[in-house]
Amino acid sequence: MSQSPGRKQENHKISRELFVLTYGALVAQLCKDYEKDEDVNACLDRMGYSIGIRLIDDFLARSAVKKCRSYSETADMIAQVAFKMYLGVTPSVSCSSAAGNEFSLILDKNPLVDFVEELPVERASLCYCNLLCGVIRGALEMVHLAAEVSFLQDRLKGDAVTEIGITFLRKPEDRKHRRN
Amino acid sequence: MSQSPGRKQENHKISRELFVLTYGALVAQLCKDYEKDEDVNACLDRMGYSIGIRLIDDFLARSAVKKCRSYSETADMIAQVAFKMYLGVTPSVSCSSAAGNEFSLILDKNPLVDFVEELPVERASLCYCNLLCGVIRGALEMVHLAAEVSFLQDRLKGDAVTEIGITFLRKPEDRKHRRN
Repeated sequence: MSQSPGRKQENHKISRELFVLTYGALVAQLCKDYEKDEDVNACLDRMGYSIGIRLIDDFLARSAVKKCRSYSETADMIAQVAFKMYLGVTPSVSCSSAAGNEFSLILDKNPLVDFVEELPVERASLCYCNLLCGVIRGALEMVHLAAEVSFLQDRLKGDAVTEIGITFLRKPEDRKHRRN
Repeated sequence: MSQSPGRKQENHKISRELFVLTYGALVAQLCKDYEKDEDVNACLDRMGYSIGIRLIDDFLARSAVKKCRSYSETADMIAQVAFKMYLGVTPSVSCSSAAGNEFSLILDKNPLVDFVEELPVERASLCYCNLLCGVIRGALEMVHLAAEVSFLQDRLKGDAVTEIGITFLRKPEDRKHRRN
């Protein structure tokens, strides 16, 4: 494709505000479409999943990270590389199970809710940022890691922090390595 | 709000890919919701308008630009400051009327369609990026500039470039200055 003369290489960064407001429009539309919060949450998760399975290629290409050797490394990679790259924030990570397959990503600031003050009373069960859970789940699946991902705490619901729980369901070596 | 020790000032930038895919999910949802392309286009425009009237405060605060003295300056500001800030691209601007109130923003690359190859046959009238028109319209209205904003050309529809037309409807000094 032809480029205007003198045009600099365009970068991959955009302003967060436009994204946050567009995401808000998406959630508002789903709230119009679905009466039950659970259905909105499920839809956001499905949408996120579809995004995650496409975003992983971009992530692997741009981050040039090596294969993780443990769930712990994977959780750190999500927090320190992926969140930083895509959302400009770095959650802290804690392991929350003796088995070493459950992790929490803890955000003291959730970049997706800059313009959201609180959930409306009638939407008390809404997981406003549930898209993120789907994105993580979809991206992990594409690197052969099955996981359950959900919000455990949410500042929008009055919790002190926002916490995303990731439970890895089986070891990667249990599955044949294939890449779609 | 407490910050993690050593946490750097978080910037306002996020990765474009996540935004592009999330925007795609929004358009896909509206295509499920509305049978007619015109209704999807109108909905995207309305959503964009709501975003624009909120985004303008962020724009004015962060860009620290001075008041524009002409439609031409305003069009340049949208292209060179606003598009650059929010989408990381700089459209070229041309004036397309002797009256000096019609402008075109020409994008040789539309950052919102990175993952879209072409519109489905049954969605030939879809203005995929119509949200942008609404954003521009809403933001201009908040600085007392009424405008019509629409896509004149679209690479997704086979045109050589993507062109957004802005027609300013009346001079700012015709209206009392008020800010809601």
